[in-house]
Amino acid sequence: MKTIKGGVTAPKGFLANGIASGIKRSGKLDLGIIVSVLPAVTAGVFTKSSIKAAPLVVSMKHIKKGVGRAVLVNSGNANCYTGQAGLKHAQDSCGLIAKFLVGVKPADVLVTSTGIIGKQLPYNKIVDATPHLIKGLSDQGGGKFAQAIMTTDLKVKEIAVETTIGGKKVTIGGCAKGSGMIEPNMATMLGFVTTDAAISLKMLKIALKRATERSFNSITVDGCMSTNDMVTLQASGSAGNKKITAEGGDFEKFYQALAFVCVDLAKKIVHDGEGATKFLTINVKGAGNEAQARKIAKTIANSALVKTAAFGSNPNWGRVGAAVGSLGINKINEHNMKITFSPFDKKEIAINVVLSLGHAAATVYTCDFSNEYIRINAEYN
Amino acid sequence: MKTIKGGVTAPKGFLANGIASGIKRSGKLDLGIIVSVLPAVTAGVFTKSSIKAAPLVVSMKHIKKGVGRAVLVNSGNANCYTGQAGLKHAQDSCGLIAKFLVGVKPADVLVTSTGIIGKQLPYNKIVDATPHLIKGLSDQGGGKFAQAIMTTDLKVKEIAVETTIGGKKVTIGGCAKGSGMIEPNMATMLGFVTTDAAISLKMLKIALKRATERSFNSITVDGCMSTNDMVTLQASGSAGNKKITAEGGDFEKFYQALAFVCVDLAKKIVHDGEGATKFLTINVKGAGNEAQARKIAKTIANSALVKTAAFGSNPNWGRVGAAVGSLGINKINEHNMKITFSPFDKKEIAINVVLSLGHAAATVYTCDFSNEYIRINAEYN
Repeated sequence: MKTIKGGVTAPKGFLANGIASGIKRSGKLDLGIIVSVLPAVTAGVFTKSSIKAAPLVVSMKHIKKGVGRAVLVNSGNANCYTGQAGLKHAQDSCGLIAKFLVGVKPADVLVTSTGIIGKQLPYNKIVDATPHLIKGLSDQGGGKFAQAIMTTDLKVKEIAVETTIGGKKVTIGGCAKGSGMIEPNMATMLGFVTTDAAISLKMLKIALKRATERSFNSITVDGCMSTNDMVTLQASGSAGNKKITAEGGDFEKFYQALAFVCVDLAKKIVHDGEGATKFLTINVKGAGNEAQARKIAKTIANSALVKTAAFGSNPNWGRVGAAVGSLGINKINEHNMKITFSPFDKKEIAINVVLSLGHAAATVYTCDFSNEYIRINAEYN
Repeated sequence: MKTIKGGVTAPKGFLANGIASGIKRSGKLDLGIIVSVLPAVTAGVFTKSSIKAAPLVVSMKHIKKGVGRAVLVNSGNANCYTGQAGLKHAQDSCGLIAKFLVGVKPADVLVTSTGIIGKQLPYNKIVDATPHLIKGLSDQGGGKFAQAIMTTDLKVKEIAVETTIGGKKVTIGGCAKGSGMIEPNMATMLGFVTTDAAISLKMLKIALKRATERSFNSITVDGCMSTNDMVTLQASGSAGNKKITAEGGDFEKFYQALAFVCVDLAKKIVHDGEGATKFLTINVKGAGNEAQARKIAKTIANSALVKTAAFGSNPNWGRVGAAVGSLGINKINEHNMKITFSPFDKKEIAINVVLSLGHAAATVYTCDFSNEYIRINAEYN
C-alpha cells in the first residue's frame, strides 16, 4: 500500500467539483458534489444525536438501498433546526441534482450540510449554482470538493492510497472537514471516502463500521457531538478486482487501506482542532474488551483537566488516573493501572495507560484545551 | 426556617477547630476536626470513582455502623495514590484522635484529605499538631474548621439555618470546600453538615441522599470527578425534638432545611469555581423522570461549547440543543424541545429547557469556561 496524490477523485469512476454559490458571504467555496459515473455501492454512518439535521434525515432514508450516484454538500449553513422548510430544501436538493444527471433518481443522491444552525438554507443559491456545479465536474475535482466542505478548518484534509487486491490496483481516496465551531456553532465532522474496489454492500458496511470506530469515532476535540456528523463510502467497482463478498485476505487488504485513509483523515481533523497547540495520542491497553478500552481512552481525552495539563506541558498523571476512576469500573484501582507519558514538552504527546483486566486495546486522538479554544468559542457572534 | 450565623458548630452538641499543622507550606490552616460531644448518628456519601483515596476507604468502613464522634480533615495533601503507607496513615489518624478523646474508639472517627495527590501525607505533622488541635476545640470553632478545609477556594463556604420541628428549635449547619484544582490536581468537593435534630439513621440517610442529589450532585465545574469527594452529616439529637423515624411533616421540615443548606453550599462552590465569571442555572422541565432531567441538565452544564458561549455572553441555543441531542434520547427532537435564556450579558444566567416527555424536572448549577480556567489548570506545576 502506498500513499498517492489526490482525494475522492483518485479512484476510478468518480467525478467531483466545488464552487462558490454565495451561501458563505466570504465568497469561498461552499457547494460540492461527488458523482459516481456508474451506480456505486454506498454505505454511511451518521450522528447518533437524537437531533438530526434535515439533510441527514433525507440521506439516511436514501442510503437504505445501498447503491447511489451522488453526494451533495454545502458549507456555510447546517440546515438544522429548520423545520419542515429545511426538510423540503434537503429533499428538493436531491431532486435538483437528479434532473441534471442522466439516469439518476432523487433517491440516488445523498445530501449534507455544515455551517450555522437555526437559519434557513438559502436554497435559491443552490438552485442558481447547480448548473455551474455540474458543468465543472471532473476526475480532478476532488481538491475543489475538499475545499467546498470546509468551514473554519484551516487546512484542506484529503488523502488517497493505492493497494493491490487480487492482482488489480485498487485505490481509496477521501476528504474530511473537522471541528471548526465558529460558524457551525458546533463540531460537525464530515468524511467522504471513495474507492474503485469491487465489494458487496454487506462487506462495505462492515469495513466502514470497523474503520470508523478506529478513526472518526476515536477522536474528540471537546466531547461535543454534532447534529450533522456523517461519513459516506462509495465503491464504484471500476478497479476490476474479483468482488469482495466475504472476510478473507482480499477483505483484510481492503480494510487495512480503508482504515489507513480514515485514521489519516481523523488525525488531520484533530491537528486542525480549534486552538489546538498539542496532539495527544491516548493508548489504553489491557482492557476487558475494545469498547471498554475506547471508552476509557475517550474519557481521558475529554477530561478538561488532562487537556489543560497538556496545554501547560504538565505531565499530571493524577488527572489521568482521576479520569479513569470517574468511570467507576470497580476492578480498576491505583494498584493495577500503570500510567506513562512521552516527553510532555513536545508538540505530540502520548499518554499510555496499561490495565490488567484483559488484552484489549484502543487508541484515541485529541488535542489540548488552549486559550485560543476559549477565545474562538466565546467570541463568536 | 431562617438563616443564622455560623456553620458546623451552630447546632447544639458540636465542637470544632482548625489549625496550621505545617502540611501547607503557606502556613495557612490545614488541619480541622469536628467533634460531637455525644455519639452522633452519622451518614455519608462518597465519590463514585473506582479510585478512592486512602482516607475514604477507611471512612467508608467506619461509617457503616451509623454512629460516630469525630471527623478529621486535612488540606494540602489528598493522601491518594499513596499505597499501603497512605492507608496506614489514614487508619493511624483515627487511632490518634481516639487517644485524645475520652470514650472514643478509632472506628468512631472519620477521616478525609484534600490537596496534592501522589505524595505521602506528612503524618508526623498531624501527630505533632493533634494535641493543639484538640485543645482548641470550641463550640465557636466552625469558622476555623471551614478555613482549614480550603485548598484553592477563594472564599470560606459555610451556612447555618434554624427551623422548628415539633415545637423545638432545630439547627443545621454546614461548610464545604470546592473545586480548587491547582494544588489538589483535581476537583475535590468536601461537605460537612451537622444538626442537633433527633433522627433515626435510616431517615438521616434518606434525607442526605435526596439533598445530595439536588445539591452536590447537581453542580459541575468541569465534569471531572475526584478520588476524594465526600459529604458527611452528623446528627447529635440535642435539640430534643421527638425523634424523626419515618416520612411525614417533621421529616419534610428537616429535609427542606437540610436541602437548603446543601444547595446553598453547592452554589457557593460553583460561584467559587476556578476562573468562573458567570453562574449558570440549568433548568430542565418536562422530562420522563428526575434522573433523566438531571442527566440532561448536567450534559448541558458540562458542554464546553455551552460554557464558552456563556463566557462570551453568546446566547447560543444551538449548542444547548446539540448537547441535549448528544444523549441520543430518541423521543427528543427539535420539534418537542423549547430552549429559552435569561439575559445573557448578566453575571447570573438561566438556561431553560422544556421537553414534552413527562412532568419531571431538575436544576443543575455550573459556571462558565474562561481563559482563567485554562490558565489556572495549565500553569500549575
